[in-house]
Amino acid sequence: MCESKFVPTFSSSEAAEAAFYAAFANCDLYAMDVVWADAEVICIHPGSSALIGRKVVMRSWSNILTNAEPPTLKVEVLSRILRDDLAVHVVEEHISPVTGSPEPTSVVLVTNVYCLEADGWRLLEHHASMPRPKQTTH
Amino acid sequence: MCESKFVPTFSSSEAAEAAFYAAFANCDLYAMDVVWADAEVICIHPGSSALIGRKVVMRSWSNILTNAEPPTLKVEVLSRILRDDLAVHVVEEHISPVTGSPEPTSVVLVTNVYCLEADGWRLLEHHASMPRPKQTTH
Repeated sequence: MCESKFVPTFSSSEAAEAAFYAAFANCDLYAMDVVWADAEVICIHPGSSALIGRKVVMRSWSNILTNAEPPTLKVEVLSRILRDDLAVHVVEEHISPVTGSPEPTSVVLVTNVYCLEADGWRLLEHHASMPRPKQTTH
Repeated sequence: MCESKFVPTFSSSEAAEAAFYAAFANCDLYAMDVVWADAEVICIHPGSSALIGRKVVMRSWSNILTNAEPPTLKVEVLSRILRDDLAVHVVEEHISPVTGSPEPTSVVLVTNVYCLEADGWRLLEHHASMPRPKQTTH
């Protein structure tokens, strides 16, 4: 008998974002996979080059989430732009590597782009960067 | 007699992006100002925190462009997503600080978000980050 897994439907970009951060916080690779769009996706991890396409993006998340300790993760929304079938959220992630870790919390600035696909809202782009302690510009 | 300045209309997100990078390359603060949207804008310079609102964003560009030597700037498009009135472009900027400078070219990864306003396409968000030489992830 085939085992079928439940594939959730996200009725808004906010729901897709909540699922993305729940997957991240729980180190749940399956949940992370289903939140990404079927379209050509892009992921820029902090300090990294751009990963383009589902295969390479999901491999990066597999490296991050597999055998990892669930991080303590808080997300602060800075901006949300919503049109009919495209949404752009700018958020600040506050990440402590492991629950109870003495390491300082990292702040990561993120632009998340969501699109409405046939089965609901999905993550299309994740661009993350870390501000340096000393502020600089271009 | 009042002097009125020409305010260009950008008929596409590509046209707005070309104007943004022309303003950057020419250190033209007026041209930079008119390409940004009237809506609440966001700008994240490499390594910086998020600047929110026209006033603080334009102040940052004034600091960057005023009395600056025009950089040599090449832009490579990685991805363009276009919906009715919102567009997301992911590009790589290749910036040499001054024409003929011996300094190495910087590569900056950028997500540019454009929106269609009453008078054409404008820049709504600019999120720039620099990849580190050694690749790391979250």
